[in-house]
Amino acid sequence: NEPKKPDVKTAIPGPKTLALTEKLGKIQNTGAINFFVNYEKSIGNYIVDVDDNVLLDVFTQISSIPLGYNHPRFHDVMKNSQNLSHFINRPALGIFPSADWPDKLERALLSIAPKGLKHVTTMACGACSNEQAFKLMFTAYQRRKRGEPTEEEKESCVYNKEPGCPDLVILGFDGAFHGRSMGCLNVTHTKWIHKMDYPHMDWPCAAFPKLKYPLEENVEENKQEEARCLEDVRRKIDEYNARGKFVAGLIVEPIQGEGGDNSASADFFCQVQAICKEKGVFFHVDEVQTGGGSTGTIWQHEQWNLPHPPDVVTFSKKMLTGGFYATDELLPREAYRIFNTWMGDPTKVLLLEEMVKVIKDENLLSQVKVTGEYLRSNLNELQVNLDKLW
Amino acid sequence: NEPKKPDVKTAIPGPKTLALTEKLGKIQNTGAINFFVNYEKSIGNYIVDVDDNVLLDVFTQISSIPLGYNHPRFHDVMKNSQNLSHFINRPALGIFPSADWPDKLERALLSIAPKGLKHVTTMACGACSNEQAFKLMFTAYQRRKRGEPTEEEKESCVYNKEPGCPDLVILGFDGAFHGRSMGCLNVTHTKWIHKMDYPHMDWPCAAFPKLKYPLEENVEENKQEEARCLEDVRRKIDEYNARGKFVAGLIVEPIQGEGGDNSASADFFCQVQAICKEKGVFFHVDEVQTGGGSTGTIWQHEQWNLPHPPDVVTFSKKMLTGGFYATDELLPREAYRIFNTWMGDPTKVLLLEEMVKVIKDENLLSQVKVTGEYLRSNLNELQVNLDKLW
Ligand code: FES
Repeated sequence: NEPKKPDVKTAIPGPKTLALTEKLGKIQNTGAINFFVNYEKSIGNYIVDVDDNVLLDVFTQISSIPLGYNHPRFHDVMKNSQNLSHFINRPALGIFPSADWPDKLERALLSIAPKGLKHVTTMACGACSNEQAFKLMFTAYQRRKRGEPTEEEKESCVYNKEPGCPDLVILGFDGAFHGRSMGCLNVTHTKWIHKMDYPHMDWPCAAFPKLKYPLEENVEENKQEEARCLEDVRRKIDEYNARGKFVAGLIVEPIQGEGGDNSASADFFCQVQAICKEKGVFFHVDEVQTGGGSTGTIWQHEQWNLPHPPDVVTFSKKMLTGGFYATDELLPREAYRIFNTWMGDPTKVLLLEEMVKVIKDENLLSQVKVTGEYLRSNLNELQVNLDKLW
Repeated sequence: NEPKKPDVKTAIPGPKTLALTEKLGKIQNTGAINFFVNYEKSIGNYIVDVDDNVLLDVFTQISSIPLGYNHPRFHDVMKNSQNLSHFINRPALGIFPSADWPDKLERALLSIAPKGLKHVTTMACGACSNEQAFKLMFTAYQRRKRGEPTEEEKESCVYNKEPGCPDLVILGFDGAFHGRSMGCLNVTHTKWIHKMDYPHMDWPCAAFPKLKYPLEENVEENKQEEARCLEDVRRKIDEYNARGKFVAGLIVEPIQGEGGDNSASADFFCQVQAICKEKGVFFHVDEVQTGGGSTGTIWQHEQWNLPHPPDVVTFSKKMLTGGFYATDELLPREAYRIFNTWMGDPTKVLLLEEMVKVIKDENLLSQVKVTGEYLRSNLNELQVNLDKLW
């Protein structure tokens, strides 16, 4: 009785969802509820709601389900009694990891590490991964400048004061979304709903390319558009540096998600990295939404052929665990510097380990490439035909 | 073969921990590693390391293990096949919760809600719980001031500008620790290791009482000390308000943890709340470390007998899930306002539901009170005898 095709039986939201929404509405804001889900019945790409409607799910929990619902190999992980103690004894991973932790990191995360990056640290979500990455960049920036910290820096920072808390900034892009904690919000530039009423820092925001489609017909125009944005990146860095608000890092999504599904060329990103190198700015690629295989490579930025690895790559969502890969230079030098209670959750890494195997065993990256190309070329055709229609 | 008493067989860290630390050191900073743990063998209050040393664990994963290791009732939760699909299909809870979600919130979280609070929203850790709570307070503060937002506010905030991003602040205390994301760091005042090199906002920091012990012998002095701190709270609010950096909220831990295990009297906290009410400042109690029962009540602040509930109470650690309770006034009015991909993790709430039952079934709160009183009075005696010794 597995659902094999979409089957809509009620209005959506259906009567059961409506009743449950009312119930939940007494407890919390329910404005974002689409429907309540029967997760036991959902399977693969089909999500089944509590009113028994079966829908083709292309949204997959805000792009956070890597292998579809109820993948049998994930069931196997849960049935393995060796894994049980991980689920009921959540460790403080930074202090008391289990014996199998280094191997798990190796198999789940280093086996798919972006080229050139061999350090990885887990976190629990995309926001804390980005927040910690900012901190890595701030510290590495200061370290380059001054070497060992002074006593004055150590004392002043406890009360939010200079020189211990320097006026450093991270450069983001217009249309970018990097999370909803206060550090991440400084470089998030999407909708008021994410930002209004909250104090923000004066961090720079550069233009992100708005390409024209079809790409083949707008080559020159798109080149100019990207050049304009690169010029803006350069200008923003110079402007802020000149004002003593030094740009320590630049963060960019390979494909803007929340900001409107905006892409740029591989060359654009290579140029951004080159500007960063020139200006002493660390280059942070936020693969929270793009990482995990849905672009045909585990990391979208692998498709850019960068001459050097990014300084830091963050991930979460379909990777099941949050975290970051970083270069030697960015790795924290002191204990407890990049730290929190849990430092991620080993149960998510257990599932990730299996996911990585499934991707390999079932050759899913090639499948993504073939299916993606099919979808894209047919969308192109639809677009052309639609143009004729109008 | 369950460990029944401490049993130390090797130096700590032992040889197996040393070998694993070296291995992990190639992947990440290991400066905080104490030892690697055998979680299958650990039981109750006894933690067993990979070198087979058995230790009495009074640190319990930075105070995040509520019922000791491998509690049989947690094993039962995992064996219940009805729970399985929660573990392998992590939902975006704000959009697509499962049918049992409202009941789970009811049983796990509302059944133990602080008096007067009936709204609860889950988050994934203490830091995001606090960050979201700040945002609730900022919005409620602005709402009181202006009612509906203007178009100018909606547009300006996207680029971090006023009036959409007003210059609001949260008042914290000296010695406070509230997390390591950038919002939380603004009100964290502990050690340089948490803060140095990171830009911070100019948010106020008030003195927290440093009481003298034994309390019975220092009544007058401690009263004065608390009065001094209350005066400082009042002064900091007035000072910042006068500078146009309006104090929207005040955050306080019931017992400072990271800052040195500092307590204050119930009266102190009642007075702090009274000052907040007088000044139109929201009162945020951070129970991330104190919540969950280890003080003899589920929430430490229940012992203050506040005349009004706090405006927001955050939790995590021993509560297994992060989240916040909030008053009607603080509840977000718009969809997607307080939101992120996962909005917590239902598998943690499954375990919490069971934990709440165990606390009740086994009468654990009384046990904490009796054991806590025993420990405290004997520590007092030790202190007196030690004084004589010197
Ligand atoms: S900030 Fe990432 S889990 Fe809380």
